[in-house]
Amino acid sequence: MNDNQTPIIIDTDPGIDDAVALAAALYSKELDIKLITTVAGNVSLEKVTYNTLRLLQFFKKEIPVAAGAAQPLIKEPIDASNVHGETGMDGYDFPEPNENLLLKEHAVNAMYKTILQSNKPITLVPIGPLTNIALLIRLYPEVKTNIKEIVLMGGSTTRGNSGVMAEFNIHADPEAASIVFNSGVPIVMVGLDVGWKALVYPEDSEKLKTLNETGHMIYHLFQKYRGGSMKTGLKMYDSCAIAYLLCPEMFTTQKAYVGIELNGSLSKGCTVTDLKGYLNMPSNATVCLDIDEKLFKGWFLDSLQKCN
Amino acid sequence: MNDNQTPIIIDTDPGIDDAVALAAALYSKELDIKLITTVAGNVSLEKVTYNTLRLLQFFKKEIPVAAGAAQPLIKEPIDASNVHGETGMDGYDFPEPNENLLLKEHAVNAMYKTILQSNKPITLVPIGPLTNIALLIRLYPEVKTNIKEIVLMGGSTTRGNSGVMAEFNIHADPEAASIVFNSGVPIVMVGLDVGWKALVYPEDSEKLKTLNETGHMIYHLFQKYRGGSMKTGLKMYDSCAIAYLLCPEMFTTQKAYVGIELNGSLSKGCTVTDLKGYLNMPSNATVCLDIDEKLFKGWFLDSLQKCN
Amino acid sequence: MNDNQTPIIIDTDPGIDDAVALAAALYSKELDIKLITTVAGNVSLEKVTYNTLRLLQFFKKEIPVAAGAAQPLIKEPIDASNVHGETGMDGYDFPEPNENLLLKEHAVNAMYKTILQSNKPITLVPIGPLTNIALLIRLYPEVKTNIKEIVLMGGSTTRGNSGVMAEFNIHADPEAASIVFNSGVPIVMVGLDVGWKALVYPEDSEKLKTLNETGHMIYHLFQKYRGGSMKTGLKMYDSCAIAYLLCPEMFTTQKAYVGIELNGSLSKGCTVTDLKGYLNMPSNATVCLDIDEKLFKGWFLDSLQKCN
Amino acid sequence: MNDNQTPIIIDTDPGIDDAVALAAALYSKELDIKLITTVAGNVSLEKVTYNTLRLLQFFKKEIPVAAGAAQPLIKEPIDASNVHGETGMDGYDFPEPNENLLLKEHAVNAMYKTILQSNKPITLVPIGPLTNIALLIRLYPEVKTNIKEIVLMGGSTTRGNSGVMAEFNIHADPEAASIVFNSGVPIVMVGLDVGWKALVYPEDSEKLKTLNETGHMIYHLFQKYRGGSMKTGLKMYDSCAIAYLLCPEMFTTQKAYVGIELNGSLSKGCTVTDLKGYLNMPSNATVCLDIDEKLFKGWFLDSLQKCN
Ligand SMILES: [Ca+2]
Ligand SMILES: [Ca+2]
Ligand SMILES: [Ca+2]
Ligand SMILES: [Ca+2]
Repeated sequence: MNDNQTPIIIDTDPGIDDAVALAAALYSKELDIKLITTVAGNVSLEKVTYNTLRLLQFFKKEIPVAAGAAQPLIKEPIDASNVHGETGMDGYDFPEPNENLLLKEHAVNAMYKTILQSNKPITLVPIGPLTNIALLIRLYPEVKTNIKEIVLMGGSTTRGNSGVMAEFNIHADPEAASIVFNSGVPIVMVGLDVGWKALVYPEDSEKLKTLNETGHMIYHLFQKYRGGSMKTGLKMYDSCAIAYLLCPEMFTTQKAYVGIELNGSLSKGCTVTDLKGYLNMPSNATVCLDIDEKLFKGWFLDSLQKCN
Repeated sequence: MNDNQTPIIIDTDPGIDDAVALAAALYSKELDIKLITTVAGNVSLEKVTYNTLRLLQFFKKEIPVAAGAAQPLIKEPIDASNVHGETGMDGYDFPEPNENLLLKEHAVNAMYKTILQSNKPITLVPIGPLTNIALLIRLYPEVKTNIKEIVLMGGSTTRGNSGVMAEFNIHADPEAASIVFNSGVPIVMVGLDVGWKALVYPEDSEKLKTLNETGHMIYHLFQKYRGGSMKTGLKMYDSCAIAYLLCPEMFTTQKAYVGIELNGSLSKGCTVTDLKGYLNMPSNATVCLDIDEKLFKGWFLDSLQKCN
Repeated sequence: MNDNQTPIIIDTDPGIDDAVALAAALYSKELDIKLITTVAGNVSLEKVTYNTLRLLQFFKKEIPVAAGAAQPLIKEPIDASNVHGETGMDGYDFPEPNENLLLKEHAVNAMYKTILQSNKPITLVPIGPLTNIALLIRLYPEVKTNIKEIVLMGGSTTRGNSGVMAEFNIHADPEAASIVFNSGVPIVMVGLDVGWKALVYPEDSEKLKTLNETGHMIYHLFQKYRGGSMKTGLKMYDSCAIAYLLCPEMFTTQKAYVGIELNGSLSKGCTVTDLKGYLNMPSNATVCLDIDEKLFKGWFLDSLQKCN
Repeated sequence: MNDNQTPIIIDTDPGIDDAVALAAALYSKELDIKLITTVAGNVSLEKVTYNTLRLLQFFKKEIPVAAGAAQPLIKEPIDASNVHGETGMDGYDFPEPNENLLLKEHAVNAMYKTILQSNKPITLVPIGPLTNIALLIRLYPEVKTNIKEIVLMGGSTTRGNSGVMAEFNIHADPEAASIVFNSGVPIVMVGLDVGWKALVYPEDSEKLKTLNETGHMIYHLFQKYRGGSMKTGLKMYDSCAIAYLLCPEMFTTQKAYVGIELNGSLSKGCTVTDLKGYLNMPSNATVCLDIDEKLFKGWFLDSLQKCN
């Protein structure tokens, strides 16, 4: 790691969306990925861990991986298999993984050690449900002093994409989200408000096809995933969290209190984002409200061009 | 009533916003206002009833008035006195009311009789909390067969204006709203999505000042109410419900299921509007999603011009 | 009414349990039953109203009856048809009712008039779900000044008999119960704590068989209702409310705050009875904790002996 | 360990009640205590860990201790300092602890290793809030196959002793309790139903005073703790869990489904124990409903007599 790099841990549940975000992160010179942890979300823990290892093999990157939580803290798991296909990354013939990268210890213990051993405060980048991060905070509250911030993909200031009022990553484990947002660690919430504008269109996907091997791979995942519905734009939710790390100036943000609705019968998992101060609570998050769509598109294609 | 008129009952809690909506309704040739009922909301029941009677005296209209619920069904009342001033209609010197217009019976009984006696199905137009309408439906479910629809001002498909996720009229009495939305009566939800675009600017207000006596009165209420903050536009929420009755073509709508969050600790009173079908429920409302702002402005000024 | 009589309104959902309680009340010289109102509960509103009128015909008593709420305020109705049989009073061939006793107005309006017209404050005796009483309080809060107290059958300080933690009458309409308990009117809660000890055994039932016509009728209802399970004792829940009116000295009571759980996913409808003061709330009810079983049995048989 | 011993892990928050239970367990020949873990509850984590180590020094027992969770999973901690005094074990001058017994690792990791390394399935005996056990189950679900059962002190089938409807250990961390009860591991719930009958009276305490050093120590804790209120009996809640391990025949039990109320505004933390089958759920616990008070008293005094 050189001094200008940001040391991060990515907590992920690939999934295509995560695969693209990982590509952008793995080839960024500004980021030093110390550890990748996996969490059940888009598909099962077994599958997301296997997918993570397959991606690292594809990218020829040697980063330690640790498997984490197989289910949410309290809530029953959401079954998202109809959305994400059999493996979560259908449509491309990945190489078999190097199992040596998989640590023998639990993601939470691996994060704990990585954080405590780092000279520089670590940035956590969860782009799946927040189960691992919540367990980390409850098991080892002492890590909080060496976490710089948590830049997470999740939440929404308006409607959701999983429940009516809930975004998937928060909806999948609301109690974990509540622990994280109330932890006192600085939070950046990169949610649907920007994800809905971080779009890849068919013409972008065509460019990827011949860009390089990574572009080729992603093109095929996109085709399989949503060949038909791509016209209205594929939303690159998870990549927005990486984009925030690298180009925060693309984003319009506001500090606000974000409470997680844990009791609602219809709105459980809603990120109640108090932009107007109705709740009289101190702010606990920097909330991304808008993104410069054109800048994002440029950054996105540039990032994938570096992947080779 | 002539055959082309729509017979309606307005349930209201004036409030300036209600005063403007009443002006637009009272002078419309297309509407036949059979009854005006009052409900605690912006200010107390006593005050909203007094304000309603003062408005009718000002407008020289003889429409029966019946006072209704003094508090919400279950929830503690919201204290909105800081928003609406001492009387709810400060800033203009209204004539004293004609108390003869005030019926001796409860709003719910007056609605019941008016609905059952009408040859033509009645449209209910609640522009305050839904307490009276809920009591009507529970006490006299037989009225449902002679209600054409309920065109209500309330709710939001995104954030709120009272709680973080709740609009004032629904937030003020969520259980009543739940009874109304689940009643089986056709509902039109005219909420914040359109109210936020139904704006009156200082230049519009100046026009009102010399338009006619009504314009003069409204100008003074606006000045007193929000003289300072008018620059970003005063939102004519309640008038939107009247606009929908008269010019539904100004509105973009979608049929959807609207559930009222009754259990949330942070999102109680949220109108969970399932535009994407997450809940697999049959639609119970026509939800106004957008309004043509220019058409609204034209309609609004035209409507007030007729008030003389 | 003579000066020593207590003027009461009984709100009921017969049901056998209610039938027995009505018998005890109707022949008591100490009670002046001004009105009987009906509410959906054990069986549908139509059936409980029909049953009430059939009972009055059987007893040859001319007391006005008014039908009330056909469903709970907010909650879906509990289907208790498996418990109470087809009519709610199967097993005896009742005379057809005198429909003239049935008022044309809603129970809530009838209660309103009865209460306001009474020289002496009225005692309400609800022995079904509290829907009517809640509607009365919300529609006509002014009646509260002429209500002496509400002696209700409902609730429990421990477990329930409908949900795990909820007694049937409260479970059937928790929001109505919440309105009633928070109304400020003095409440006497006669619940399962005493109902479980107010038992009729087979030998008691045999005595009834030949006691008089009323005993004969009740015997047959018991036989049909629970011929098999009578050995462990039939619980005379509703009669306990009448017993409290007439012989409060049979009961051990404590003043306490009773909150109604409205939000619980497993304990909705629980009467959270704060006997130890955990909630630091002022008491809102006199809670019956125990009953002298022997005195009750004596009172019960005496009461039915007077029915002829 | 000999073959007849039951290998157990005690998870505890001393507290006097825990101190007495630990005494009974530590000198039992039938139990093999592999590990003692600590959890915030009666007093802070720091204090309960210090108290545990002081007790082991007092008893001259060398059992590894691991400190666990410093706060509940989701809920704010209950402040019970007014009940348990400054240290949680005031009134006796304990020796300073042997800090070597304190493991460097988290209670959850220590439990994990102890369970996986055991030849014989382990019995967990939590006598504090269930935070550690819940974290263990979520972090290492694989331990479940080598846990024989969880015999826990907590819950109630009726009223509570912390909230109106909630027992302290469950009330302190309801979400953790929910994880444990829904884990699929066999649960024995030793709660208030028996704790309220496991009483020590002044005459018993006097016997302890001169019984042996342990009795002397406990006598002084009792005197300091509740010298005044001892007349109605001190409740030996936690000792009941040890008693169940050693003499289950003292207890009357029933298998039932126990749900933990997580949403109630008044009954959060209630152990909704479905003895009658209202919820149609498969049973997840053996619930202690009654205890033979005389047998318990005998066992209790015998157990303390062995402590020397
Ligand atoms: Ca993801
Ligand atoms: Ca209004
Ligand atoms: Ca009844
Ligand atoms: Ca304990």
